[in-house]
Amino acid sequence: MLADLSAADLEGLTARTRADYDAFRARGLKLDMTRGKPAPEQLDLAEGMLALPGNRDHISDAGEDARNYGGVQGLAETRALFAGTLGATPDRIVVGDNSSLALMHDTIVWALLKGVTGSERPWSKESDIAFLCPVPGYDRHFAICEEYGIRMIPVPLLGDGPDMDKVEELVRDPAVKGMWNVPKYANPSADVYSDETIRRLASMTTGAPDFRLFWDNAYVLHHLTDAKREILNVVDACAEAGNPDRAFVFASTSKMTLAGAGLSFFASSAANVKWFLASAAKRTIGPDKLNQLRHIRFLKDEAGLHAHMEKHRALLAPKFAAVTDALEAKLAGTGAARWTKPEGGYFVSVDVVEGAASRVVQLAKEAGLLLTGAGATWPHGKDPHGSNLRLAPSFPSLSDVKAASEGIALCILLAAAEVESAKRRAAAA
Amino acid sequence: MLADLSAADLEGLTARTRADYDAFRARGLKLDMTRGKPAPEQLDLAEGMLALPGNRDHISDAGEDARNYGGVQGLAETRALFAGTLGATPDRIVVGDNSSLALMHDTIVWALLKGVTGSERPWSKESDIAFLCPVPGYDRHFAICEEYGIRMIPVPLLGDGPDMDKVEELVRDPAVKGMWNVPKYANPSADVYSDETIRRLASMTTGAPDFRLFWDNAYVLHHLTDAKREILNVVDACAEAGNPDRAFVFASTSKMTLAGAGLSFFASSAANVKWFLASAAKRTIGPDKLNQLRHIRFLKDEAGLHAHMEKHRALLAPKFAAVTDALEAKLAGTGAARWTKPEGGYFVSVDVVEGAASRVVQLAKEAGLLLTGAGATWPHGKDPHGSNLRLAPSFPSLSDVKAASEGIALCILLAAAEVESAKRRAAAA
Repeated sequence: MLADLSAADLEGLTARTRADYDAFRARGLKLDMTRGKPAPEQLDLAEGMLALPGNRDHISDAGEDARNYGGVQGLAETRALFAGTLGATPDRIVVGDNSSLALMHDTIVWALLKGVTGSERPWSKESDIAFLCPVPGYDRHFAICEEYGIRMIPVPLLGDGPDMDKVEELVRDPAVKGMWNVPKYANPSADVYSDETIRRLASMTTGAPDFRLFWDNAYVLHHLTDAKREILNVVDACAEAGNPDRAFVFASTSKMTLAGAGLSFFASSAANVKWFLASAAKRTIGPDKLNQLRHIRFLKDEAGLHAHMEKHRALLAPKFAAVTDALEAKLAGTGAARWTKPEGGYFVSVDVVEGAASRVVQLAKEAGLLLTGAGATWPHGKDPHGSNLRLAPSFPSLSDVKAASEGIALCILLAAAEVESAKRRAAAA
Repeated sequence: MLADLSAADLEGLTARTRADYDAFRARGLKLDMTRGKPAPEQLDLAEGMLALPGNRDHISDAGEDARNYGGVQGLAETRALFAGTLGATPDRIVVGDNSSLALMHDTIVWALLKGVTGSERPWSKESDIAFLCPVPGYDRHFAICEEYGIRMIPVPLLGDGPDMDKVEELVRDPAVKGMWNVPKYANPSADVYSDETIRRLASMTTGAPDFRLFWDNAYVLHHLTDAKREILNVVDACAEAGNPDRAFVFASTSKMTLAGAGLSFFASSAANVKWFLASAAKRTIGPDKLNQLRHIRFLKDEAGLHAHMEKHRALLAPKFAAVTDALEAKLAGTGAARWTKPEGGYFVSVDVVEGAASRVVQLAKEAGLLLTGAGATWPHGKDPHGSNLRLAPSFPSLSDVKAASEGIALCILLAAAEVESAKRRAAAA
């Protein structure tokens, strides 16, 4: 531990780390670990889609012309193909265009302007509304709340989901209308919600009668190990607990097929699906059904989908190993950071010593490594501990991830040594 | 004129028309003239797109990987291809996914929740807001207003746009925040806004500082004659009049390429585009850029786009001629109806005798002809005159349109004869 080192040893370590950092910086690399984007090799896996569905192949199983208007809920065969993944029968699924974020945005917008089933009034007519935000979390979720003036209440994630004692206490406040959740391989903590967590979320007493779990199952099939974690079906758990309309489930194929040209999904209770479709039908005459056929023709069936995800895993798992190996090699036993070893998803979450996160990002930037800004994983971009960093190893090549991870470990160690030295100077003064 | 017929002649005409109607009904046809959907033959024109962009063709002119996330404004080459059509430079264009209706919906939602540039507060915080609605108009425009509690004020269309004296008077009310416009080949009246109308819209004094023209240029290239009407550039006209942010322009390729898989466009002032993008970036990480490339590869350039529209015209013009020929043949000189002879767009608008529209729809239905519901072209589906009908001849085959048009003419004539007889009975009583 840095804290246990003698003054001379701390000085020596700092000097060696700075020399290593300077050497790394001198390599003049340009690496970007900011966003969870699929690598070109991952997109190549779906290259066959670019010529699909192919000429004269535009009729759905039900005989609909997929080229024309209509079909707001999505083709029946698309809903059937993803029913197992979403844990919902096809009649309880809606297929949207590219971007499940858009469906989450629209759901919130409709709740604000119209209310959801069970609302006494539109959410925007309440004097104060709030969402629970497990942290660290997904910056784009928080940005939607910020955009529409929804107060955000951070709740810590504990490895198997949020601190449920806190959640149960906070949701008694009727101002709390919603809660963000990435229940499997969370962004960025890689939390996998336990059955107990999900049962408590499904059954807890809420002050708002129209409270909703925003269940962003973005990484539902995005395993990195053989463990292939499964979680409890939240819609079923809510129904069993007597709260059938509590969960809005979202997912997409953005990180399955093509990041910018995927399908998005909404799944929920019959009443919620009816509510969603009534609103969606005001917005559009129907989704892009040719892109749905394109997915069907390419993936073929659920086995095809799972086989496709195995190919992603083969490309991604070594990159994640490169990150955690480098952190382990440089930082084990130093107390300079704690980090996750994710079993799935797209991120490694690192907690550096309190207050050092932005210094690490700065050091990295000066060495040509772009990291997600410190604080991005917290509401309003403000991490009160100044410690969380989100590493996104999917996009760069494996050799770049290796190089970047070594550099990041050096930045973390150097920043920690600086903090320790400053602490001792302050204590001596 | 029916009104001029002797009692015996009216009785004879009614009997003959009823016999013709019964004979038509006995044919047991099943025809649908309800919606402005492209026919399969029109969609076939773009069949080549179903295998595009094709394998390994996913890099934009700027070197972006169109398969991945990003690029909220749309590819530069897409914006360039449609710049002439939209009358805006590429930097003032945003490309969205399928459905310009979705862009109009989102624009209104953002205005309600956030306000537009120049708003004193979000529109939803005003005690009362209203839109001017030229009538007859597009039911889906009106449905958005109805959904979000926006009061609708009908304004008559006069052939070259709305009654501008009325418009200028009504917009002095600060509650009037917006106005729907389909400025070229309007749905369903086929009005083409005159330069004078557009200049007055651009320069009129509005009570609301954040008043917006919702300029749905849905039929911008959808000519049916050689006249190929052009209208004044509304964004330029607004800028010249000192109201640079007044117009939100919308268009789409839904009725150019593929109805369910087109591109949508937003074009406006620099400030409005900035506002739009800031909101859109909260909703999505980017549009489907592969569908943009698909359009580019298929249409190639503006000449290709115009040539493609000529093929649509070749398929559509005979259907429109069939409708107006049938109405002319059966109804000329009877006073039973007035109808448009559209130079573009997707509809024939018919005004039958006051109060007879729903009777015509009912007679048609009983004869196997589905027509758009009476009143659909008015806010809340309520036509105070009970006279407007919207005929959509694009989808059925030419022979079906011919058959349907004859049937419709019979229904109109029969309903008018019934009204005239009822009128005389009432006068005699």
